[in-house]
Amino acid sequence: MKRILLLGYGHVGKTFREFLSRWSSELDAQIAGVVTRRGIMLGDNPDFRKDIEGGINEALGKVKPDVLVDTSSANYKDGEPSISAYYRCFESGIDVITTNKAPLALNFTAILDKAKKLGRRVGFQGTVMSGTPSINLYRVLPVAKVRRIRGILNGTTNFILTMMYNGVSFDEALMEAKRKGYAEEDPTLDLNGFDAAAKLTILTNWMLNRNVKLGQFPFKGIEGISMQSIEDAKKRGLKMKLIAYADDKEIKVSPMEVNKDDPFFSIDGVDNSLEVTNEVQSVTIRGPGAGSETAAYAAISDLFLFKVMK
Amino acid sequence: MKRILLLGYGHVGKTFREFLSRWSSELDAQIAGVVTRRGIMLGDNPDFRKDIEGGINEALGKVKPDVLVDTSSANYKDGEPSISAYYRCFESGIDVITTNKAPLALNFTAILDKAKKLGRRVGFQGTVMSGTPSINLYRVLPVAKVRRIRGILNGTTNFILTMMYNGVSFDEALMEAKRKGYAEEDPTLDLNGFDAAAKLTILTNWMLNRNVKLGQFPFKGIEGISMQSIEDAKKRGLKMKLIAYADDKEIKVSPMEVNKDDPFFSIDGVDNSLEVTNEVQSVTIRGPGAGSETAAYAAISDLFLFKVMK
Repeated sequence: MKRILLLGYGHVGKTFREFLSRWSSELDAQIAGVVTRRGIMLGDNPDFRKDIEGGINEALGKVKPDVLVDTSSANYKDGEPSISAYYRCFESGIDVITTNKAPLALNFTAILDKAKKLGRRVGFQGTVMSGTPSINLYRVLPVAKVRRIRGILNGTTNFILTMMYNGVSFDEALMEAKRKGYAEEDPTLDLNGFDAAAKLTILTNWMLNRNVKLGQFPFKGIEGISMQSIEDAKKRGLKMKLIAYADDKEIKVSPMEVNKDDPFFSIDGVDNSLEVTNEVQSVTIRGPGAGSETAAYAAISDLFLFKVMK
Repeated sequence: MKRILLLGYGHVGKTFREFLSRWSSELDAQIAGVVTRRGIMLGDNPDFRKDIEGGINEALGKVKPDVLVDTSSANYKDGEPSISAYYRCFESGIDVITTNKAPLALNFTAILDKAKKLGRRVGFQGTVMSGTPSINLYRVLPVAKVRRIRGILNGTTNFILTMMYNGVSFDEALMEAKRKGYAEEDPTLDLNGFDAAAKLTILTNWMLNRNVKLGQFPFKGIEGISMQSIEDAKKRGLKMKLIAYADDKEIKVSPMEVNKDDPFFSIDGVDNSLEVTNEVQSVTIRGPGAGSETAAYAAISDLFLFKVMK
C-alpha cells in the first residue's frame, strides 16, 4: 500500500480522500496523514483533527509518505510552501501529485527538471481543466511534435461570455456566475485572464517543450468587453471567446472572435476545451474545468498512472 | 531496438514505416520485415520486394519480431489470418498492435484474455477513430466506472448528413464523398452502420467491460433517411447524426436527432467524436477518424505506450 500525505483539506482534499477510500484496492494506496495550516493529522479520518503541531516539513518527516498530494490553494506570490516541499520530496524519494497550479505556473522547468534528475514523478493533470484529460491527454498523443495549442481554459469567463452572447449584461452574468458557484467572491484572477494564463504556462512548457513563466507574456481578460462588441460579432456570425494560444514562438491569452467552423464556437457555459495540433493531426477535448469531484479525480488519475507507467 | 513485423503494406503500412524511420530513436524500434499477400520481405525497404515466399506464419518464424503491427484490411468473415496470427504471437512472446478492426470486433474478449493470460500486450487505438485518442483516451480516464459512451464513429456518414443538412441530396453528397476520398467505391459498410457498429463493439468491450460481439446488437445506417426528415428536424432546431450508443444494458447504432446543447451538434464533416461519461464526469473528444497518416500515428502511439507503460 502506498502511503499518501495530503496537503490541504478543503473540498478537493476531502473529495480526494473519499475517492481514495472508495478505490484504495485499485490504486493500492491510502491516506497516511493530512497537513493543513491548522496542523498535522496522522492516519486517515474523515474529519480533520490535529494530532501534532507543525507544517509540511514536519509532516513529511513524521508520515514518511510515498506520494505527496497537493490540494492546497494557489499562492501566486512565490508558490510556497509547496515548491520547497516538492524539492524536499524529490530528494527523499517521494513522488508528487498536485492540483495546485501556482508552483508549476511559476517554476515549471526547475520543478520538472529536479524531479527527473532524482528519478521522481510529478502528476499535474489537476492543474489544467481538472479531471478532463489535458496534461494527461498529451501522454497518449506521444512522439509527434506539437505545433500549436489553443484552449478555453477558464469556465467563469466562458460562462459570462455565453450569457452575454445571449443578451445578458456583464454585471448580471457575473452575479449569476457567483450565484451558481462558478465565480469566486473575488473573481479578479478569472476575469483578467490570469487564471487562464497560469494554465497556459503549464501547457506550453509541457507540450511545446518551452521554458516560459507566468508574467513573461501578455494576457488579457474579459473585463473591457462591451455588449456592443459581442453583438457586432454575433451579427457577423462570430462568437467572442477567451482564448489561450501558444505555438513555437507566440504565447498569449486574449478575447478572440471565432467562427462557426471553429471547434470552440460550440463550447458554451462553464465547459473548458483544449485543441492540440501536432505534426500529424488536430484533436479537441472538452469537459468540466472546475469542481471538487473532477479536480479530485484528476489526482486519482495521476495516482493510477504512477502505478501503470514506468 | 525492438523488431517490428508489419502485416499489410497499403497506405497505412507505408506511412507507419515512414513514421517509424523518422522516430526510430524515440521509439527504439525498427522494421524487421513486412508480410503481405505477395510474400515476405526481410529487413526494411521503402519498396516492397519479395525475399521469400510465405504468409504470416512463415514471416513470424523467419523475422522473430518483438511486435506485430497489423495494418491489413478488415476481413469480417472470420478475422483471418489476423486472429490466428495474434494467438501465435501471444504464445511466442510477441506483442500486437493493430489498426485492423475486424479481429477485435469479432472476438474482443477471447483475444484480450489470451494476451493477458500470457502477459502480452495489445495496442488497438487505430481500430477506433484512427489517431484521435479513443481507446487510449480511456487509459487516462482510469479507475472510475464508465456509465455510458456515445460516438460519431463514421466519417463518411457524418459527411453525408452534414451535406444533407445544408440542402444537398443523399446521392449528390455520396458522390462528393467519393470524389473527396471520404467514401470507398463500395460504401455499403459505412452507409448501413456496420463500420460504426464494429467500432462500437470494440469500445463497449473495452470501456464498459462487457462481452459483446458484432452481430449481437441492432445497427442502422443512413440509407433510409429522407431529405424531408432532415429538414423537419432542422426546423425543430435539431440535427440528424448517426450515433453509436452503449451503456450497461443497451448497445446500438442508429440515426438520432441531437439538439443544440449536445456536444455532437457541432461535429460536422468527416470529423469523428466520442463522449465518455464515467462516475465522475463526461468528456468529449473530436478529431479525424480516418486517413493513412492518423491511422499510422495510432500505431506509433501504441508502440510508444508499450515503452512507457508497465
